Amino acid sequence: MRRAVVLLSGGLDSATCLAIAAREGFEVHALSFDYGQRHRLELEVAPRVARLLGAASHRVVAVDLRALGGSALTSDAIAVPKARTLAEIGHGIPTTYVPARNTVFLAIAIGAAEVLEADAVYLGVNALDYSGYPDCRPEFLDAMREVAVRGTKRGVEGFPLEIRAPLLRASKAEIAAMAVAFGVPVAATLSCYDPTGTAASPVHCGQCDACLLRRKGFAEAKLADPTTYAA
Amino acid sequence: MRRAVVLLSGGLDSATCLAIAAREGFEVHALSFDYGQRHRLELEVAPRVARLLGAASHRVVAVDLRALGGSALTSDAIAVPKARTLAEIGHGIPTTYVPARNTVFLAIAIGAAEVLEADAVYLGVNALDYSGYPDCRPEFLDAMREVAVRGTKRGVEGFPLEIRAPLLRASKAEIAAMAVAFGVPVAATLSCYDPTGTAASPVHCGQCDACLLRRKGFAEAKLADPTTYAA
Repeated sequence: MRRAVVLLSGGLDSATCLAIAAREGFEVHALSFDYGQRHRLELEVAPRVARLLGAASHRVVAVDLRALGGSALTSDAIAVPKARTLAEIGHGIPTTYVPARNTVFLAIAIGAAEVLEADAVYLGVNALDYSGYPDCRPEFLDAMREVAVRGTKRGVEGFPLEIRAPLLRASKAEIAAMAVAFGVPVAATLSCYDPTGTAASPVHCGQCDACLLRRKGFAEAKLADPTTYAA
Repeated sequence: MRRAVVLLSGGLDSATCLAIAAREGFEVHALSFDYGQRHRLELEVAPRVARLLGAASHRVVAVDLRALGGSALTSDAIAVPKARTLAEIGHGIPTTYVPARNTVFLAIAIGAAEVLEADAVYLGVNALDYSGYPDCRPEFLDAMREVAVRGTKRGVEGFPLEIRAPLLRASKAEIAAMAVAFGVPVAATLSCYDPTGTAASPVHCGQCDACLLRRKGFAEAKLADPTTYAA
């Protein structure tokens, strides 16, 4: 059975991405990161989501992006923006941008794939309803694809590693619909940048960009949203 | 003054690379990694080398590549090869290869450069006297250059980050000659995969691939080698 490494934050997008990798016939190895994120709840949510979705393994790799600074998601000194309009989201690069986060995560996933002899890395980025991060764009992914082929032992030996972003052109409404259709445990996932609650019952703030986009997705898909929002 | 991030292991190549970045007019910010390497001495050597070479800052970022496994440099279960002939070195990919190490290091350097608003990342890889690692090859670096431009906020905003590998086509003899010419504190640097001694006076094993290449460099350059070798 062919193997895939799936980047799993525990959010709706990455959980849906994991479900897609499994549907596409891969033995799925989930990979999460302890990168110094201010809210630690996702590190408890991710293994639970991996288990509920039947991943063959789940590992957490520590990488201290907090040492670099510069983001609201890793620094206590920068506030997470709240209650922005949907027009504001997607214009400009917000303070929640963690410099080179997806670059670092994909680099580590490429290393994990090499050791596991996996044929694919999946990640749940999307470029439509995204939050303005440069490392969520298709042209960035194309550059990482070249890195995966040229920078690995398996690539050099003729086993090119694919990087798959099946949600890249999906809207949040389409992602919500796929999540429901593919049996993703939606209420167990956590998208919020500023959550409360517990791993077993996470509470979304309802006001950060990630919450606004998540809400909008279920609303536009005309699907019941099982998420608990604080406001 | 323009800034550069320089990857610094504390070995001869990265120390020479740092000296080159400074000569090219950059304010130099050295970056080292605690990646779970089996020998920890380089983590004490690197800040000393950075200080001796006048770096503006030095930071160590932790990234647990040990969690991925698969290399003699991070796993106690895989031996570091010793006393290979120079013909054996450079053919095939050795067990000291750490999957995607340079990919991960460059990804983090790109993040550091973004936060520092640096214009360049320097790294001391070389593709001639190299040890057969796929992520030391020119075609790999070209792919990472695209990542640096496409995956960063500064790149998107029109300040492309350069990735410079000034030693890429240099032989070890040329690197030894540059090190001496540019005032690198050679005896303070540490190239060995299996060292002993202390940060102030490191002892090279003399038998691993890195030691064999270092010795050969000074011998071919007809320069006195101030390194202490155990054998």
